Amino acid sequence: MTIDSIREARERLAAVVQRNRLDHSSTFSAMTGGDVYLKCENLQKTGSFKVRGAYNKIAKLAEEGKTKAIVACSAGNHAQGCAFAASAMGMKATIVMPKTTPIAKINATEGYGAKAELYGDCYDDAYLRAREIEKTEGAAFIHPFDDEEVIAGQGTLGLEMLEEVPDLDCVIVPAGGGGLLAGVALAVKSINPKVSVIGVQAEGAPAIALSFREKKHIATDSVYTIADGIAVKNPGEITMKIIDKYADDVVTVSDGDIASAIIHLIERTKLVVEPAGATPLALLLSGKLNVRGKKVACLLSGGNIDVSTIGKIIDRGLVSRGRKIEFSIQLQDKPGMLEKVSHILASENANVISITYDRMSADLELGETILHIGCEVGGKEHSERVAKALTDSGLKVLENGRGGR
Amino acid sequence: MTIDSIREARERLAAVVQRNRLDHSSTFSAMTGGDVYLKCENLQKTGSFKVRGAYNKIAKLAEEGKTKAIVACSAGNHAQGCAFAASAMGMKATIVMPKTTPIAKINATEGYGAKAELYGDCYDDAYLRAREIEKTEGAAFIHPFDDEEVIAGQGTLGLEMLEEVPDLDCVIVPAGGGGLLAGVALAVKSINPKVSVIGVQAEGAPAIALSFREKKHIATDSVYTIADGIAVKNPGEITMKIIDKYADDVVTVSDGDIASAIIHLIERTKLVVEPAGATPLALLLSGKLNVRGKKVACLLSGGNIDVSTIGKIIDRGLVSRGRKIEFSIQLQDKPGMLEKVSHILASENANVISITYDRMSADLELGETILHIGCEVGGKEHSERVAKALTDSGLKVLENGRGGR
Repeated sequence: MTIDSIREARERLAAVVQRNRLDHSSTFSAMTGGDVYLKCENLQKTGSFKVRGAYNKIAKLAEEGKTKAIVACSAGNHAQGCAFAASAMGMKATIVMPKTTPIAKINATEGYGAKAELYGDCYDDAYLRAREIEKTEGAAFIHPFDDEEVIAGQGTLGLEMLEEVPDLDCVIVPAGGGGLLAGVALAVKSINPKVSVIGVQAEGAPAIALSFREKKHIATDSVYTIADGIAVKNPGEITMKIIDKYADDVVTVSDGDIASAIIHLIERTKLVVEPAGATPLALLLSGKLNVRGKKVACLLSGGNIDVSTIGKIIDRGLVSRGRKIEFSIQLQDKPGMLEKVSHILASENANVISITYDRMSADLELGETILHIGCEVGGKEHSERVAKALTDSGLKVLENGRGGR
Repeated sequence: MTIDSIREARERLAAVVQRNRLDHSSTFSAMTGGDVYLKCENLQKTGSFKVRGAYNKIAKLAEEGKTKAIVACSAGNHAQGCAFAASAMGMKATIVMPKTTPIAKINATEGYGAKAELYGDCYDDAYLRAREIEKTEGAAFIHPFDDEEVIAGQGTLGLEMLEEVPDLDCVIVPAGGGGLLAGVALAVKSINPKVSVIGVQAEGAPAIALSFREKKHIATDSVYTIADGIAVKNPGEITMKIIDKYADDVVTVSDGDIASAIIHLIERTKLVVEPAGATPLALLLSGKLNVRGKKVACLLSGGNIDVSTIGKIIDRGLVSRGRKIEFSIQLQDKPGMLEKVSHILASENANVISITYDRMSADLELGETILHIGCEVGGKEHSERVAKALTDSGLKVLENGRGGR
């Protein structure tokens, strides 16, 4: 496979995909000491880059004239990408989705005109059903990553980034099955071998990082990460060959780093990025890759994240920044104590968000109780000021205070 | 004031502001039956349009050569706009902020090189202090809206929108003090009087809507809305004259409509928009303005929203969509009952997020208890399925179940 197939893909995609600029971020540049650029594929049609590979594959099948229907298997971005692409080519599409797929993703897929078939409890079951439909209905199976046309479609992002900023030093790309990383690495290295290409995986789904390091194909037994878009146990055969040849390194980031990057993107760039898409920035902000003085592009690969997941990430972020805190106060069990505590909290401008009494702790004397009171505060300094005000007024604040419930 | 001052402003701003496209939204077009475009000033430098007016004013002062320092008063976007603009012009800036200003906004303002002075408990106190600094230090006071150069700067958005889509039928603009609405209305109507210009306010801060309707200047005694960016009691004199002359209507939307629009923007466009900035889309999605068959531009004026506010909006949204629900179950107070309930919830794939026992309800017989159990579910249908499974197994589910805590 060469860059020619990526250039062909670009022709096919020209009228279909949204071309977003590679935006310079002064915030993240200042935070890392490099020149950080963001390629916002979260703003792409269907909410992720996946539409590129799917469209390139399906358009090529249409050109060859042998195919009238496609079938794919996905609970995520590949489902929407295939549905959109098939609809654009006037082709019938069946997307097999595990029964556990969130209703919003089913609706989005059907919204692009595809038939969503719910089958089985996990990806593997749905996959087998899709291969069955391939045989019985003669529909072309569209693999989510291990396919040269799919890889070529994703590789168009490499062309675009180097056109926007030709003197990039480094490109950082999320990796799950490896289609995006393989395509971008092939494109970038074919144009300019001096640009380094780094893949990023989640610590809980590190198959490509392990395979790259050990120089052999490794699949993991299980995956566990908030980055559902790259939670892949078994990387592709074709993708791994290309990654081994062209990528400079494949590294991992923790779910905590990913969550923190998502919050930074919301706060500073006003962009919603899904966990997989935030991994490149997570790598930069974790400090594990030194980019001082370098021009670095982060590929924010998608934005399809459930709002309830955003809510949970924000909650955790507020706790870890000291914006939500729970004070545990050992009190005499008598009238007036809650008033005393709440008066201090009001004076210190702390907003109460939860409150429980605990009379069952083993350490309590008769006539004592523990009040757990969750508060919103401005940050760690503010919460220390509140704790001091409580202590100064003679209250016993226990050390095991924790984040708000 | 004429469109010439807006054209002059555009020259001044050319090298400074980010020019974002007027993006077509197929999602919101399908939802409203119109052709909906979004002008994403949430992606503007400093996170809002305010930098346009502030920069135009400060650059003009610099051209006149009489001013070496500026002073402004704001807890929000005007603070950052002035700080950025003054720094770009190499001018000293003092921004007076109420003491209640969130630390993130103080940091952002100081990050642009301005001196942030914390003073007083509310905007009015801080305003008086700023006017004092104007006198004692000879700094030019930059009004947040009631100033012709500020209005001209905001008006550049009207030019841009009509250049991008010349055959717009309607432009919808948030309104607080009225600077943005006045500038855009003047620009748009001067170019094409057939384009209708609608201002949107929050129901809890309706001074311009009232003034427009009554044809006299009305200030409100108080404001109460989540849209802090347009929570203005007293609109400008200059802005109201222009709005009366050029705007077609000024309407209001509820905080509920605004919150729902914010969630839709996160889910469908991957954009973080602050409450004031979401009011135009809130108006469209509320169905109060019929735009069927029309080309409509929504000006998303800013994206500076605290993550904890996003978290609260998402929480409310999940409850109102039936994604979070609390079941209240009247039980016999004996061993095994929690296991019975939790077994049903597990079988129905409902995720437990909170649980409390209530033995103090007046309606309870001796030997009974109420279990309040909060769950995450897929939506209203799923929660009805869970309720049915609980009832079918002989449990008494009370009707007053409510959103998760």
